[in-house]
Amino acid sequence: MSSPSFLSTRARALTAGSSAGSALSSGRTRAQANEYNKQSNPDGIINLGVAENRLMWPDVVQKVPVCRFASAIARFLLEWSGLPSLQLNDGFQYRSDHLQYPPYHGTDALRSAIASVLTSFLFPLPTAQITPNQLQITNGCCSAISVVASVLADVGEAVLVPAPYYGGFYSDIEYEAQVKCIGVDFEPPFFRVQVEGLDRAYTQAATQGVTVRALLICSPNNPFGNCYSRDELIDIMRWCAKRHVALVSDEIYAGSVWGSADDDPHDRLYPFVSVLAIDSELEAGLSRDMVHVLWGLSKDFMVNGLRVGVIQSRNKEVVAACRQLAKFHAIPHPLDSLLASILSDHAYVSRHVALNKERLSDMYAHLTCWLRKKNISWIRANAGFFVWLDLRAFVQGMGGRVASLEGGEREAGDSTPVDRSAERLLAERFLEAGVYIALGEAFFCRDLGTYIRAFFVCTVQMKRGVISGSRLVPSRVRDRELGDVGKRPGADVERS
Amino acid sequence: MSSPSFLSTRARALTAGSSAGSALSSGRTRAQANEYNKQSNPDGIINLGVAENRLMWPDVVQKVPVCRFASAIARFLLEWSGLPSLQLNDGFQYRSDHLQYPPYHGTDALRSAIASVLTSFLFPLPTAQITPNQLQITNGCCSAISVVASVLADVGEAVLVPAPYYGGFYSDIEYEAQVKCIGVDFEPPFFRVQVEGLDRAYTQAATQGVTVRALLICSPNNPFGNCYSRDELIDIMRWCAKRHVALVSDEIYAGSVWGSADDDPHDRLYPFVSVLAIDSELEAGLSRDMVHVLWGLSKDFMVNGLRVGVIQSRNKEVVAACRQLAKFHAIPHPLDSLLASILSDHAYVSRHVALNKERLSDMYAHLTCWLRKKNISWIRANAGFFVWLDLRAFVQGMGGRVASLEGGEREAGDSTPVDRSAERLLAERFLEAGVYIALGEAFFCRDLGTYIRAFFVCTVQMKRGVISGSRLVPSRVRDRELGDVGKRPGADVERS
Repeated sequence: MSSPSFLSTRARALTAGSSAGSALSSGRTRAQANEYNKQSNPDGIINLGVAENRLMWPDVVQKVPVCRFASAIARFLLEWSGLPSLQLNDGFQYRSDHLQYPPYHGTDALRSAIASVLTSFLFPLPTAQITPNQLQITNGCCSAISVVASVLADVGEAVLVPAPYYGGFYSDIEYEAQVKCIGVDFEPPFFRVQVEGLDRAYTQAATQGVTVRALLICSPNNPFGNCYSRDELIDIMRWCAKRHVALVSDEIYAGSVWGSADDDPHDRLYPFVSVLAIDSELEAGLSRDMVHVLWGLSKDFMVNGLRVGVIQSRNKEVVAACRQLAKFHAIPHPLDSLLASILSDHAYVSRHVALNKERLSDMYAHLTCWLRKKNISWIRANAGFFVWLDLRAFVQGMGGRVASLEGGEREAGDSTPVDRSAERLLAERFLEAGVYIALGEAFFCRDLGTYIRAFFVCTVQMKRGVISGSRLVPSRVRDRELGDVGKRPGADVERS
Repeated sequence: MSSPSFLSTRARALTAGSSAGSALSSGRTRAQANEYNKQSNPDGIINLGVAENRLMWPDVVQKVPVCRFASAIARFLLEWSGLPSLQLNDGFQYRSDHLQYPPYHGTDALRSAIASVLTSFLFPLPTAQITPNQLQITNGCCSAISVVASVLADVGEAVLVPAPYYGGFYSDIEYEAQVKCIGVDFEPPFFRVQVEGLDRAYTQAATQGVTVRALLICSPNNPFGNCYSRDELIDIMRWCAKRHVALVSDEIYAGSVWGSADDDPHDRLYPFVSVLAIDSELEAGLSRDMVHVLWGLSKDFMVNGLRVGVIQSRNKEVVAACRQLAKFHAIPHPLDSLLASILSDHAYVSRHVALNKERLSDMYAHLTCWLRKKNISWIRANAGFFVWLDLRAFVQGMGGRVASLEGGEREAGDSTPVDRSAERLLAERFLEAGVYIALGEAFFCRDLGTYIRAFFVCTVQMKRGVISGSRLVPSRVRDRELGDVGKRPGADVERS
């Protein structure tokens, strides 16, 4: 009885998109259904393709004391019901209204706690003080992006995103807000953002009658795990001012910057600088009303499963409009209050962040030491919990075509189809070998050959994952290809 | 520095809407900021305007055992962290992935539990068996409505809603989905839905170039607290089939039907019949692919603050399209699993539902007995936890104009402005007297004079609320007006 005419046009586009993306999503689905576990499922699939920082999981449990988390819920239920209250000295502020409708944009307590955490992560200028009134809580950062896209752009207008980019941005921008997500390709091997590329993309969109309303950057960068320099950010801000385009900075990895910048000015590792640490008006002529920051708890606090995102804006109209959409993206009232309690514990937050950075740094050292031995190259990182591996040699070893290492300038918005069959076959081989990897394709990387964003799962799983994969590459091919990479002058794509 | 040009057109419409609605929302805000509490705030405002069933709150706490709720969280955190697990025999199924990304549309366990609960509430036909695959969990029923509106209608197309209706439908349909919510006025005093009215609204929309894609009903009805008859539902289904319009039935009060139907065929109290208990294809020629049900935990399980809604559809394309939007409306993974555990406890669910119905029935008896004494009329109810009071005498007592009791036919979509100043003044007087009421205006009720949806808060608060209000009406006026009401032939608007 089913007929396509029962669906709206936009719904048909959504479902068409889902089948087109199935080549990528099926691997993830298979990996999640058969996840590796040392004890219970040693033949399962190691997941190197999902942005979950597992290094801190045991500590999150220990440091956010279980008894406190549980007793806080018990306590509010008891007190609120009028039964004798439990006497617990855990700092949790009892609120009587947790089963009532919450303030959809987040309680004052949670927004205050997050204002404080963000201040410690972003080092905003005194003139950019982060206040609770600037903040809105959402059920995950995807919702935050969707809401901001809706508020900044009308249906059919566009947001530019430097590519390769976290693939979720595409659906975050397009699916619900119905705003076009236009990736702007930058050049390998370093993919740094330059205003000429933004200009080309903007002009090309304009030629097609599409108005660009915002530029979305992920800072620190996902999938590269490195930071924009202050100068790059100012260039971007100037460009936004010139084009009258809002700047949205997704700083969800701001609390996971674990490495230092290099002294060498030719190197590509910079310290993290929030857009709130730059006076956009003074330094770039960009109104502070056009700069918005996104954040969430998933990455820096390892709670992807809780779904908590944040929109920060100093533009009162943007804040007011976002709040009109808040009820569609609210989090549970008890979760709100529990998080407010946990995040108000400054000592805990400091310990947690320090320990996480230490572990991320250690894991990067372990992993890259081992990648060197295996002749696998990657882009150097100092933030997040992943590295961008260059697996073009793997693809070539299987007879697939790869982009030249020199890259070459590509037109922004050029949508010439690229033959990805060899890459997808490689991903399939990885899966058969027990490893799920996220292909460059999933990050809208237009370069042929495969890059992957591989995560610091844990040393054993990471190594096992890459070993399994490296068996797929004939050593002759690997040595030759990676030898070439090594000869590139000035390459700071690390390798042995 | 702020400029309207930083906002999208739709965002400007959202914020313009928010100021227009301020007359209504400010009362609610004041009530919530100064809520009555017998001990701590005896001079606070009694809230008769928010759909929260408080009668069962102490029981929800006791029957959903606190220790179980709390220990379940403790347990998954402990087990998942590899620490020694707590041995708790509470029926909670441990899952290892609660801090990982959840299945955005809800876990299998929660959807299975809800399929079972819905089956017990809706009595679907054997041919309409409710399966977990038909379901999608959302963060609240507002999100469910918004998602379904997006999937059924394109931007600028329309959903019809019989009026007066739960005012939230308007924003649920318009704000994010950008679909027009067209109220279809029906006639007082009973406001029953008739296909002639739907036809007029459909035709008027078509004249204006607006395509109607769905009809949304709230069944049992909010704000009236009564049920559609089986015949009415079949009429509605036939109309939907004829017009090729989907039927969306919001059955969020399905588990809160506490009263029986009357034997008198002229009476207006019918038993609750779900749209899934009618073979729409056989009885009305309406494809089952065009019938969708919404539900949520807020009303029947008193957890408005948890934000859990459900979309049910047998249309696989609709399900697939809804799931593409799932990540914007996901609930936390631990909450999902806890609810799965609680709702799988059939004995608990049965006890809870029975006790709730008993209390609602008692409260209705108390309240209506007292309303009779006070000469205040209302529409008879057998579902939900509110009654629709007729306060036209109050408005007239203050010198305001009211609609004649005979009503009279109005054109659907007729947007002639109505002078609401006397009603708003009455609401203000109520607030000053310590009572917040939701005006008929908030339910898109076009009749002049004021109806309110008043909740069964608790006997004392309810009585105190109405007493405070009734002091506002000069007894001479009240007696005269309500005398007239009493003389209407065949009136089943109850009064003394």
